[in-house]
Amino acid sequence: MSGTFEILFVLYPRFTQLDFAGPYEVFCRIPGVRVRLASPDGGDLVTEHGLTYRGLERLADIDRCDLICVPGGADQSSVTAPETLAEIARLAGGARFTTSVCNGSLVLGAAGLLRGRRSACHWAMRHLLAGYGATPDEARVVRDGDLITGGGVTAGIDFALACAAEIADATVAQAIQLLIEYAPAPPFGSGRPETAAPGVMEAFQKLVAG
Amino acid sequence: MSGTFEILFVLYPRFTQLDFAGPYEVFCRIPGVRVRLASPDGGDLVTEHGLTYRGLERLADIDRCDLICVPGGADQSSVTAPETLAEIARLAGGARFTTSVCNGSLVLGAAGLLRGRRSACHWAMRHLLAGYGATPDEARVVRDGDLITGGGVTAGIDFALACAAEIADATVAQAIQLLIEYAPAPPFGSGRPETAAPGVMEAFQKLVAG
Repeated sequence: MSGTFEILFVLYPRFTQLDFAGPYEVFCRIPGVRVRLASPDGGDLVTEHGLTYRGLERLADIDRCDLICVPGGADQSSVTAPETLAEIARLAGGARFTTSVCNGSLVLGAAGLLRGRRSACHWAMRHLLAGYGATPDEARVVRDGDLITGGGVTAGIDFALACAAEIADATVAQAIQLLIEYAPAPPFGSGRPETAAPGVMEAFQKLVAG
Repeated sequence: MSGTFEILFVLYPRFTQLDFAGPYEVFCRIPGVRVRLASPDGGDLVTEHGLTYRGLERLADIDRCDLICVPGGADQSSVTAPETLAEIARLAGGARFTTSVCNGSLVLGAAGLLRGRRSACHWAMRHLLAGYGATPDEARVVRDGDLITGGGVTAGIDFALACAAEIADATVAQAIQLLIEYAPAPPFGSGRPETAAPGVMEAFQKLVAG
């Protein structure tokens, strides 16, 4: 890799912090990578649960990037405003990789970037991809040419390690995996609807209803 | 659970953001839980890679909590200052659970909270636990009475789901697992030294050397 590889996260009010935080941790550790954070308005940004990030750049001020990544969020109204979608499409057009985590793929879809492409999404919103001309794919990480998308929330870690292998190489990706001790051992097997224990789907619905 | 269950994260300059971000995402979603963030000095806080969190509380201003959690970090000099360790010991003394992720357990050790106890830690620093009178345990989540500790970085997600089952119940924990789609599928098998592919340990050492 010659020069700096620029990774841009597109953040927005009430985005899901772990959709971003997993890939951020991985990307920051790739040698030769510079990570930038931008939002529609720049400045301070409050996540879904009230954590505040300080001093983001304005999306319109970003000249270019090599990889653009849109995480998911509980409210995508600000990031799907026409002028913001136009900025996302502009930056994706100049990037080597266009990517998303969770329902961030719906933002890529709204920007017109998924027509005729396979894409991942959070399981509960995956069906909405069809509305943007995309083919929903239930894999945890989906690669379709220069488009790399991850599934719900924690899939962002798997996604980012796959990207690291593309940006650097598989050995660097695995060194980062070792550094973040990513040998997962979930205490339960309810990470997907297909494997959820009895009563868990009902508890999930109660949880998201507040 | 009656009343609000108060979870306190003890953050500090150059802490590892994913050690915190995984558990934070899980804890915020447990009904009846209030999550607070504090640091030795309060105010703004810059993580290991330059992300800035805004408006933390001062540790000394926190009256009490039900669960205290110390994530790991690249530089623990500020959090191991005697007056900070005294605050951590004070808060742990009144808490139902004392917890850590990654080398956050070394901070608990320095605060005198691990003598004669079993504890997890990041694999590369696990041997240092013995210096605090603790028994290093290589499990990803280690429970010893009211002490619950997680291994390196991403172990914080497994750790937090195990805590959620204690704070609420196993069904709520699994509903959160389903929400964050935690059905991990690492693209490589190098998450532990014992399973790392040839050349990965050397690449890891190069990575941490900068």
